[in-house]
This record gives sequence, C-alpha cells and structure tokens, in this order.
Amino acid sequence: MHALVRRTHEDRVLRALQENGAMSRGEIARVVGLSRTTLSEITGNLLQRGAIVVVDTDASLREGSGRPAERLALDPSSAQFMGVDFGHRRVHVAVADASHKILVSGAVRYDDTASWQTRTGLALELIERLGSGAGVHYGALQGVGIGVPGPYPAPDGAAWPRDSRGATVLHPAPEGVDVAFAERFGAPVIVDNNTRLAALAEAITGADSVSDLVYVRLSDGVGGGLVVGGQLVTGSGGLAGELGHVTVAPAGRPCRCGKRGCLETVASVPGILAACWEFGLRLENLDDLAAAVARSHPVADRVLREAAATLGRVIGSATMILNPAKVVIGGEITRLAPVLVEQAAATLAAEIFPTASAGPAVEAARLSDEDGALGALAAVFHNSPLLARYPETAEVKGRSDAPDATTERAAHVRP
Amino acid sequence: MHALVRRTHEDRVLRALQENGAMSRGEIARVVGLSRTTLSEITGNLLQRGAIVVVDTDASLREGSGRPAERLALDPSSAQFMGVDFGHRRVHVAVADASHKILVSGAVRYDDTASWQTRTGLALELIERLGSGAGVHYGALQGVGIGVPGPYPAPDGAAWPRDSRGATVLHPAPEGVDVAFAERFGAPVIVDNNTRLAALAEAITGADSVSDLVYVRLSDGVGGGLVVGGQLVTGSGGLAGELGHVTVAPAGRPCRCGKRGCLETVASVPGILAACWEFGLRLENLDDLAAAVARSHPVADRVLREAAATLGRVIGSATMILNPAKVVIGGEITRLAPVLVEQAAATLAAEIFPTASAGPAVEAARLSDEDGALGALAAVFHNSPLLARYPETAEVKGRSDAPDATTERAAHVRP
Repeated sequence: MHALVRRTHEDRVLRALQENGAMSRGEIARVVGLSRTTLSEITGNLLQRGAIVVVDTDASLREGSGRPAERLALDPSSAQFMGVDFGHRRVHVAVADASHKILVSGAVRYDDTASWQTRTGLALELIERLGSGAGVHYGALQGVGIGVPGPYPAPDGAAWPRDSRGATVLHPAPEGVDVAFAERFGAPVIVDNNTRLAALAEAITGADSVSDLVYVRLSDGVGGGLVVGGQLVTGSGGLAGELGHVTVAPAGRPCRCGKRGCLETVASVPGILAACWEFGLRLENLDDLAAAVARSHPVADRVLREAAATLGRVIGSATMILNPAKVVIGGEITRLAPVLVEQAAATLAAEIFPTASAGPAVEAARLSDEDGALGALAAVFHNSPLLARYPETAEVKGRSDAPDATTERAAHVRP
Repeated sequence: MHALVRRTHEDRVLRALQENGAMSRGEIARVVGLSRTTLSEITGNLLQRGAIVVVDTDASLREGSGRPAERLALDPSSAQFMGVDFGHRRVHVAVADASHKILVSGAVRYDDTASWQTRTGLALELIERLGSGAGVHYGALQGVGIGVPGPYPAPDGAAWPRDSRGATVLHPAPEGVDVAFAERFGAPVIVDNNTRLAALAEAITGADSVSDLVYVRLSDGVGGGLVVGGQLVTGSGGLAGELGHVTVAPAGRPCRCGKRGCLETVASVPGILAACWEFGLRLENLDDLAAAVARSHPVADRVLREAAATLGRVIGSATMILNPAKVVIGGEITRLAPVLVEQAAATLAAEIFPTASAGPAVEAARLSDEDGALGALAAVFHNSPLLARYPETAEVKGRSDAPDATTERAAHVRP
C-alpha cells in the first residue's frame, strides 16, 4: 500500500478510536468505510507498533469466523504528536496523546555554541528518557513539529543577513535537521522558525481562533510571526515576520543586523535595560526590572512606555498593512511589565483608521517562552485547519519499512 | 448533473479544444476521459450557448452510427473571460477569449455621485454595445472579475472608517454588485477591490510571476494590495493593504481618514502638488508636474525625492514584515516621474537587512491605471494558480437553467 494512502487510512482509524472509544474491527470498518482486508492490514500494523491495544473481547460480537470479536482501543501510553523547540541554549520537548493531552514534557540545556548534531542528539536522548520514565512509547507518532531559532527554510548564503564583521545575524538550522527525527520516529516532520510556530499556536489556541494574526516577541531580540488568511507566512526568502528589524529611529542605536535604530534596539530586553541605564537606573536583568516596576520607578515606567509606544507604531503599521483580527505580544517581559501591552495597544489605536471597532484585539501571549514546544506541537495537531496547506518538510516513505526508511524533502513551493 | 461537476467537465472540454484545436467528439472524450454520453450532454450545451461550433465533418472519422464525425472547435467570437473595473468616475471593461487574447475593451464615464445601480446598468449597456459592434457574444463566459474602488467585502457599518464629519473615507461597493452580472451572464463572479486585483495582475503577469508581492498605487489617494504565499490578502475585515494610511509624520497634514501625516498626505498626487506649492512651485495637475520634471525643476525634484523616500520607508517596513519577492509601484505619476521608483528603491534598500541580495525587486507597475479591467480579468483567468484558493463571491447554481437561475454567496471563510 502506498505510504500516503496508508497514513490516511491510519489517521481515520485512530481518529475513529479517539472519538468512539473501544471498537471491534467490524465496527471500525463500518465507521471508516474500509474493507475488512484493508482494515486488518492497518490494525495489524498499528498493533505491532503499539499505537493501539486489544482491550477486551466482546462475546456479544462475533467475527466472520464465529470467534468472539476483539475490541481495539488507542494505547493510552502511545504518543501521537511531538513538539520540539530548539532555543539558543536549550531544547524543550512536549509529547501529546491523540486527545492532545500532554503526556510528557521536559527540557535540557546546551551551550549556545553547541553544534546541531549535539543539539539533536541531546533532544533525542531527552525524548527517550522522558518516555521510559513515564511509560510512554513513540511507536505511533503521527507527526513531529520542530521549532528552530532562525528563519526556516534558511535563505541561501548570499541572502543571509550578516553584520559588519561578517557574523550571521540570525542562526539558521541546517537543512536536514528534520531528517534525524523523521528517521528515528518514521513520522512526518514539520520544521519552522519557533517564533512563527508560536504565532500559529496563538492563532489556533483557545475558542476564539483567528485566521489573521500578527505576533511579536520581546526577549533578547525582537522576533515576529504572521498568520495571514489562515496560513503561516514564510515570505519569498524565509524572512517574513522580522518586525524587530523595522527601522524606528534612523539615527538610533546600532543594531546587530548592521542597521541603526531597529525596533529591536528599543523594545528588546537588552534595549530596555540599556535605556534605563541611560537615565541612571542601573538594572542588570529582568528580575531587577520587575522589582523596579513593582515599586513604580518613574524611569522604568517612562522607558517601558516609550518602548511600548515605538512597538505600537510598528504593529500599527503592520495592522494597516495586514488588517489582522488580533495582535499578540509575547516574551517574559510582558508578564513582568503589563504596561508594555497596555501602552502598545493605546498607541496602535492611534495609528489605524480612527474607528475603535476597526482595530485588532491586542493581547499578551497565552503561551510563555517556556511553551515553545507547544508551538511546535500546534504545528502537528492533525485537526488544525491552518495546516492543511502548510508544506511538510519531510515525509517518510514507507514509514514501517525500517531500517531502510528513506526521507524525501517536499519542495518549499506553494501549490 | 450538478452545476459544479458540469462546470469542471466544461472547463476540461474547452481547455482540450483550446490546446488541440478542432476535434471530434470521440477524440475529445478520449482526451478528457469522459463517457460519450456525458460528453454529448456537455458539447450539446456548449453548442447551444455558442461556446463552440461545428467547423467541419471529417469523413475519415466515423461516429458509432457510421456517419462522418463532426469536428468541434472553440467559437472564435465567443467571449470566455470578462473583467470589469469600476472606478470613481468610469467603468472599464475588457473581454478575452479562451487564449486570453482581448476581444473587445472600452470604457464609459459616469458622475462620481452615480448610484451603483446606474453604474452597473451603464457597464452592462457598454458590454452589449462592445459585443454587438465586434460580433462577440457572451454565451460561454467562464467567469467575470469585477474590481470596485473600496475594500471588498465591505466591513460592517461600525467598523467602517469615517472622517470627523461622518463621511465615509472609502467607498464600498454594496453587497450584491456581483448578482447583476451573475444573473446576466450565468457565470461565476469574483469581486474585489481594484487595487488588490491590480496587485494580483502584477504578480501573475509576465514570465517571472511571484507568490509574494507588495503593490502600492499613487494617484488621488494611495492604495495597496498584497499577494502573500500566492494568495490575495483581504485581512480580517477587508481592509488589508492600506499602505496609504500608515502614519509617516504624526504631526503632518490632516488626512481624509481623520488621522494626520498618513503616507497618502505625502505621496499621493494631491500631496505632492501641495508640497510643491508650499515651496513656491505652483502646479495644478499632473501635466504641470510632468513639465516641471522635464525641465528638472529643483523644487519638483526635491518634493518627489522626499515623497519617494517616505514611500520607501513604508514599503521597507512592509518588506521587513512580509519579505516579498517584488514591490510594485503603480499610478500614472510613476511614468511621469521615474525618480519616484528610483528613490523609493534606494530608500527601501537602506531599510532592510544590509545584504543587497536579500531585498525585493522594486519596479514600476506594468499595467497602467487604465488597465484596471485587466486586473479584474486576471482574477478570472482559469489557469491562474493564485486563484485556486481564492473565494468566489457568487456561483450560479445550474448556470443554463435560466430564467430561474439563482445565485448563492460563498462564505468569505478560508477553508
């Protein structure tokens, strides 16, 4: 059976079991509309991989042979979806079951100079450790989402932003970061920039999912991601969503990208701390900033409001351009200093058509920086309509034909 | 037969005739893979509507009955695609055959206070007049694209931008502008803002079509349109692409939208003429401006460069946000003053990551303001891959079941 056809059949069988609980093969065949022969092949493979288990034998149902019918169910210890978020200094992993409940999650640190081979190895070790600790197995993964810190797919060398000393400004994951996971788990892998995946997670999380969203994250830098018309946006060269490098002050502070006065120089955590120093308030880190906010320090308040107003002008321009339903501002600093979101929303309101109801909702992110793996997970939840047209970066041919499973890379071309 | 199924069959038959020239029914059936019965129904209907004609009888081919086989071909006088561009003061129409060759085109003026009923009536009269003058009939239209000056679909009343006196800033076409055309021609109708349709036309015209494009048009106002990931972008409320109302100078000139210092106040034709007046150069219109440019008047040059630099900063921000492959600047003024595009491109280059090859191509529009109907046409050319996922606003049920043909409105929801 062709691998894609089998995957589709498998999905339907797993979904039917998720929705209906334990069922006999005959019941499953009727619900998903497969022949008994095809269904037996599918369930045999799923049983072998541990995705499903025999829960009991229903004596009131009889197979064609006259034997009592076995009832099958999802294996509650079988992971279905995996999200992996590679940060600059650690990797987060979260694994969910068929109902999207998190089964296990965890993180492991590495040095920010660690190679991608090292990072991948550490992530795979962590995943094994988490699984064996909790009795969770990965024989039936439906998909793996991987978030990486740089743009993805990486622009070609010539197009890659470098600073004046030739150092890369953004750190791309190498082509093929997906292959190790595809080979290990025999499941489709989606790789994208982790800020983009966070944008997707914010768009589809909760009851009020939206099709048009602008996401910006304030941390060591300022990143962003866009969902437009229900699609994650990559741009022509993988660089879409770089709101942090919109120029806000042509004569402003030098930015690591080689320009001056980028939003990032004003609204990133280092940018905000530097501005506080300029006004005589010496803060070393976010904890110091939180303490200054807690005692309503006027310098902290002024710097935060000015940074937020600048941010508000940039997301205001983005709103005029894209007309999103929602603008989400993420990053730990927004939790410590809620004024950032309040002031950005107020400034944005003055940047758009002066009718209140025409503006987007402006909200703090629901997911924290620690939740990056949930963004990656969001990318693989099968029922996400946002992903129906999003390219998978690796699809395993003949997923259970290991050990000679090979991977193919889908072209990054919109249909 | 279900209308959509029939349309699909019809498309395949028409395309086969377009690609292969005259064919017998038997040949068509083989090429498109339809049964002879279904094909006879399709060709009978197409013959009746005049989309195809019997060109000759090929004695070397015999039908099942033993009669010599008729060969069928596209009727060269049969219109296949229609583009209609409603401007503020006139409507342009262009009609193309199956090979996308323009068969007829024309325009008719109306007062800018004319009702939509009047405008629609004048457009339909023009279309009839053009057709009968050139011997072109509309019995086999595959689709009608309609451009309208305001955002479309119109935002709801509360969200609609109004100025301080309560007047609407942008002029929406009423819901249902499509129905008159759908009923008259029994063809699917796509309606959208005409600047957006121009963006689509720029994206798909020529050999180097792109999936990510930012389009801005400088005329009485400044409008824009976006193609992102191969899709025209409407935004959550139909307001995407309003680059003209990005704030560029918070204390600048009042804008008709109720804000101050929008790009439109600086880079529209009236904005540029007003700036020339401020510096003592009294120009009444574009002709005067063209004359000043021709004699290299320093005030005109300075004003144009400053307007273009401001434009460059806005499209630079849009480029950082969307990473388009191409930025297109339209409007008659860009033909009279090429410095606008040159300076905007130079400024944009300084706004993005400082690596030359990462930037988009910045070009003057290929289509002129008079070519709006071509933008609308672009929206209905069947072989546009960009449109595969774009919502049709009206689909006729049972297109040949007139006179009781009714229209249904597809929900403006992304799948």
